[in-house]
Amino acid sequence: MKLGRMNHLGYAVPDMDAAIAHYRDVMGATVITEPFDMPEQGVKVCFVHTPGNGEGGSGTAGTQVELLSPLSDESPVANFIAKNPLGGQHHVCFEVPDIEAARAWFEGQGKRILGPTRIGAHGTPIFFVHPKDMLGMLTEIMETPKEAH
Amino acid sequence: MKLGRMNHLGYAVPDMDAAIAHYRDVMGATVITEPFDMPEQGVKVCFVHTPGNGEGGSGTAGTQVELLSPLSDESPVANFIAKNPLGGQHHVCFEVPDIEAARAWFEGQGKRILGPTRIGAHGTPIFFVHPKDMLGMLTEIMETPKEAH
Repeated sequence: MKLGRMNHLGYAVPDMDAAIAHYRDVMGATVITEPFDMPEQGVKVCFVHTPGNGEGGSGTAGTQVELLSPLSDESPVANFIAKNPLGGQHHVCFEVPDIEAARAWFEGQGKRILGPTRIGAHGTPIFFVHPKDMLGMLTEIMETPKEAH
Repeated sequence: MKLGRMNHLGYAVPDMDAAIAHYRDVMGATVITEPFDMPEQGVKVCFVHTPGNGEGGSGTAGTQVELLSPLSDESPVANFIAKNPLGGQHHVCFEVPDIEAARAWFEGQGKRILGPTRIGAHGTPIFFVHPKDMLGMLTEIMETPKEAH
């Protein structure tokens, strides 16, 4: 496997509106997507774009910040917020060209994969690898979108 | 202020050699810098490069993973590892064009800045903002290097 792009950092936040205001008003983010619900994951999701480093300047996408807030007390993110009331890093996501090849690779390395491959917030297949096998980081592996996102 | 590039994610790890092996052999990173000591911060530091998303393909720098391991039991990172024995995210770093303007901006927003502006691991001025004022994230603000790094 060859390391792919760091697509996003997942941050759990207790209050989505306050987090969006922080990124917009304090950090100066200019592109923040509308939040949307992912009820099957129990989360509300919103992406903060950061600039990249290519020749394209601001037209080149950088790593996104994915803000996550719980939809209910049963959400896995609700447990995270209970332990980290201010919020904090929830996961990191790297891209791969082929999700099935990546899944076979991590399985072959003896890494514990959490659940089935499913469609993630970017509309491409993803899976998660257990933090205890990944230097303490819950790690999302995501197939690179076919078109820019 | 306008949000700058996400320069790196700082990850604290208990064993630098094991972390480098993980990124090289499991994650497939192809560019990993030699670790070096920053005794004034009490840490050993190493950067894992990830690819960017520009037209330049692999020639376009993405967000780096900055691996940090403690140089001694007195290191602030040693406390972090005591609480997170496997390792975990320690900070996130965003670039700004002008470090003094950024410092004045965060101060004006009532954000607590941790200590003086100093020279960071990339050789440019940096400061840290308190996680309690930043959605639970210890945040490094770094002046963009004048040349590609």
